Amino acid sequence: MLHTESNYSRLTQFLPVVGWLKTYTRQEFNSDVFAGVITAILLVPQGIAYAILAGLPPQLGLYASILPPVLYALFGTSRTLSVGPVSIAAIMIASALNAPEISALGRPVQSALILSAESGIIMLVMAMLRMGGLVNFISHPVLTGFTSGAALLIIGSQLPQLFGLKTPSCGIDTACYSQYLSGIVPAALAIGLVAIGLLLFFGKPLVLILKKIGMEVYLITAISKCGPLLTIIAATVAVDYLDLHVATVGNVPSGFPELTFDFLPLEKWYALLPFSAFIALIAYVESVAIAKVTANFRGEKISPNQELIGLGIANISAAVSGGMPVAGGFSRTMVNFSAGARTQMAMLIAAAILALAVIFFSPWFENIPKAALAGIILVAIVPLVKLKNIAHTWRYDRGDGIAELATLLGVLVYGIEEGITLGIILTVMSHLRKTSQPHIAVVGRIPGTSHYRNIKRHSVETWPHLLLLRIDESITFANINYIEEFINVEIRRQPGLKHIVLIFTSISDIDTTALEMLENLNHSLQSANITLHISEAKGPVLDKLEKTDFIKQLQPGKTFFHTEDAVRELCGLN
Amino acid sequence: MLHTESNYSRLTQFLPVVGWLKTYTRQEFNSDVFAGVITAILLVPQGIAYAILAGLPPQLGLYASILPPVLYALFGTSRTLSVGPVSIAAIMIASALNAPEISALGRPVQSALILSAESGIIMLVMAMLRMGGLVNFISHPVLTGFTSGAALLIIGSQLPQLFGLKTPSCGIDTACYSQYLSGIVPAALAIGLVAIGLLLFFGKPLVLILKKIGMEVYLITAISKCGPLLTIIAATVAVDYLDLHVATVGNVPSGFPELTFDFLPLEKWYALLPFSAFIALIAYVESVAIAKVTANFRGEKISPNQELIGLGIANISAAVSGGMPVAGGFSRTMVNFSAGARTQMAMLIAAAILALAVIFFSPWFENIPKAALAGIILVAIVPLVKLKNIAHTWRYDRGDGIAELATLLGVLVYGIEEGITLGIILTVMSHLRKTSQPHIAVVGRIPGTSHYRNIKRHSVETWPHLLLLRIDESITFANINYIEEFINVEIRRQPGLKHIVLIFTSISDIDTTALEMLENLNHSLQSANITLHISEAKGPVLDKLEKTDFIKQLQPGKTFFHTEDAVRELCGLN
Repeated sequence: MLHTESNYSRLTQFLPVVGWLKTYTRQEFNSDVFAGVITAILLVPQGIAYAILAGLPPQLGLYASILPPVLYALFGTSRTLSVGPVSIAAIMIASALNAPEISALGRPVQSALILSAESGIIMLVMAMLRMGGLVNFISHPVLTGFTSGAALLIIGSQLPQLFGLKTPSCGIDTACYSQYLSGIVPAALAIGLVAIGLLLFFGKPLVLILKKIGMEVYLITAISKCGPLLTIIAATVAVDYLDLHVATVGNVPSGFPELTFDFLPLEKWYALLPFSAFIALIAYVESVAIAKVTANFRGEKISPNQELIGLGIANISAAVSGGMPVAGGFSRTMVNFSAGARTQMAMLIAAAILALAVIFFSPWFENIPKAALAGIILVAIVPLVKLKNIAHTWRYDRGDGIAELATLLGVLVYGIEEGITLGIILTVMSHLRKTSQPHIAVVGRIPGTSHYRNIKRHSVETWPHLLLLRIDESITFANINYIEEFINVEIRRQPGLKHIVLIFTSISDIDTTALEMLENLNHSLQSANITLHISEAKGPVLDKLEKTDFIKQLQPGKTFFHTEDAVRELCGLN
Repeated sequence: MLHTESNYSRLTQFLPVVGWLKTYTRQEFNSDVFAGVITAILLVPQGIAYAILAGLPPQLGLYASILPPVLYALFGTSRTLSVGPVSIAAIMIASALNAPEISALGRPVQSALILSAESGIIMLVMAMLRMGGLVNFISHPVLTGFTSGAALLIIGSQLPQLFGLKTPSCGIDTACYSQYLSGIVPAALAIGLVAIGLLLFFGKPLVLILKKIGMEVYLITAISKCGPLLTIIAATVAVDYLDLHVATVGNVPSGFPELTFDFLPLEKWYALLPFSAFIALIAYVESVAIAKVTANFRGEKISPNQELIGLGIANISAAVSGGMPVAGGFSRTMVNFSAGARTQMAMLIAAAILALAVIFFSPWFENIPKAALAGIILVAIVPLVKLKNIAHTWRYDRGDGIAELATLLGVLVYGIEEGITLGIILTVMSHLRKTSQPHIAVVGRIPGTSHYRNIKRHSVETWPHLLLLRIDESITFANINYIEEFINVEIRRQPGLKHIVLIFTSISDIDTTALEMLENLNHSLQSANITLHISEAKGPVLDKLEKTDFIKQLQPGKTFFHTEDAVRELCGLN
């Protein structure tokens, strides 16, 4: 029985879907159906829009909304995360496809599928290496700076679409620009602006109005989330009826996505590797961040490593079914959650609706005006630009503010991957700088006790030939220079010094660099006739030191169990 | 008077030479003359050999031994560091000059001078930015791995010279190799092996013999350090007398190096920038490491930032006087130190001797056989290969061992710069991984006191509705996930929990990421009806938190001055 139980728990660990299916209720199903329909209504325009944002045919976004969420539903640990095409990944895909070394290889659709497959494989490898904790190493300021920068890039790419313009290639030729701007298509601009107006109206204003007339909450949610779909239908109908000449989505192949294995050229895999790595990293970090937010609301638990597996398999399935790379989308997950989704059943239903839409409604997508899609993207993206946040971060923590600003500027000026790298380097440097100055206390004995406390805060006994130092952090390459310098200053301050006792209560590790520097320090102290001792070292630290001959080198210096023992012996109090 | 004093101390800070000149004695001068002559005798063959190792004409090494040590003597803080051409920098120069993008630009001598100027400028910029502490961030394992790898590269480049072979360009064509090896010049090999034998004999064996016959120590030092010079003289004479046909150094221009400004093309500066940066970094780190060793012996002090200035000016002067990049050499500094150098006067004397040698003896250098120089380099370099050290490091600290091995392999397989970068990344990742699991103690009250201690180590009072947690490290992006997870586990363990008090005694900073995660945590705790409190936060931490509305968000949670206050209030003991 116990054996079966452990097999079962291992099964739910690898296949979290089993966990909630076991106790799934009729009531949960009703909630999930409602949320699934709402999310599907959002997924259709988002899928098309984000594929176009990535510079890909629309079906790559639609296909990415079918198989990947199904597989995430089986393997992922979040019950409400909506996996599918997302704007930030879309701009990263666009950046990869536009890189000279990638566009030279041709066939952008194939490149996009390789990005899906490769980022999925990278996530699985990270899961095998138990690198789920990697999410720790991308700090919030870097993530925020990156998101703002990517959102600005997206806005820059969508404004021409809104104006009906082709993407410019004028460079710094200002004469060209004035000619370029004369190409504005008024009909497109009108559609785009009306679309933005409609979408904004479907936000707060409509909700307030419906609340006032006393409509039930679930109906309000349903109606307000139909904004993007209704906007697109209205725009498409308008183009058709008014016979407007604006750019439209164009041919979308009908029917189910066929399983494809069109991603074999190894040369491309190699060229796309850095881009895939960054897409995997950001897709993972963003997804886990969103999954955690909704999980926290309901006291559910996210397993970072299992998330790597779920998202990895989802991305590989995207590649196989002809879809672009996927991640958990922030706004869509919040819609799914607030529409009442209880489990991933909601996303299974949404995926089924998407599949039906692709089979039966594909021809209708053809005439969607691009300006309306640009409107949808802009309304979704503008709130992600959080420039004020930089000032806020800057005031709270200078180092973090610099990292956030540098990431934003790096993304805008050098590119997405370069910006993220710069941000990570700056965060790590600022972190190392901070940890390179550990707290060190000169301590003395509280009279009549065997307690040792900071001489700056307590009135304590000290001895002119004895220096007691408590180092409040593990000793590593990052702080050993500071510690050495601190000790040297104290030695100059106390001319009659004969013994230094390092109190190791807070030290849980000494790395190789620190050990070698301590050996050098001990050596030069010995030539100055000062003996170094250690007290209160923890077991593992002593074990580690005993693998070396440091303790032998200390002689006549000793390792004491208690600081009190050291003081008694070195002051001859015994 | 006080004013003058402070001006004077500012002067010695910027021009450390003033510090020792003021109290310079006749006796010190005698010691310095002796050490200077010995070091000069070593510098001549080293200068020629290291220039050839770098793939440069011999005079670039000789010129680098004249002006740079003079300027370091004025601006550097080490009294015994011997600045000049060094083997590790030489192999880095060779690696830069052989890089396809650099060799395509032609004129290697010009490139070498740009490397000198650029690395000097980088050091000065680092000094301005007060980045002397950067030396902290290159851990000893990375430095050792790099040194072993670079030494192996040097050995690989010198063996063909020893055999009289041209550098191979066979690739994987084995037939070519057998033909290539048939080009061995027996005379060169003989000279090389005799040179190695002589050099080894001038080491320990000769010293032991001279000690046995009762010679005075300073004479023994003088004689044994003449090994390289005598070897070269013997080899040159042998080639001349026996009329051997072996590769020799070739034309060395006579007379003083002219000041040159042949380093203007900006394109080259840009292409060489990454190489200069690594040369600057390694030259600085190695020089400071050596300077510290000798300074520690005599209780002198090295100022890392002033070292950047001294080495930076020395390198710029190398460029201007036609020399290759310079650094403090390990073996030469130890020779200088053990020959009794008291101050940089020794290096001024050595530089003067070098200048005379260049003026009067240049034609003689022409016939030095390259095989003898290869012997000198090999004898100096082989001890730097410390492969056993990797096993040693590995046993002591797994993460450091991996970093050391990866650096070594990276240097050998990918290149010098790549190897160092890999090593730094691995060290930082391992460091972050360690600091990402801070010590957290669940604490309780020692009965009858207001002391709070770890429940695992002491028998203490606890309360089922109250959790007291002491976090023993600053809260940052690197460890906040671990802390959050720790708290979640404790919550599940204590079902009747109503209040959590975080005890902040050891926390000296909370970064932006940690703050945001704490806000999220507080939010989800509130929806689970658990209130979060803080106690014993230090002043600066509270000040920082008060810039945000975190403390307001905590309500009804509070910030307590003492943990005892928190317990009294939350347990209704007042």
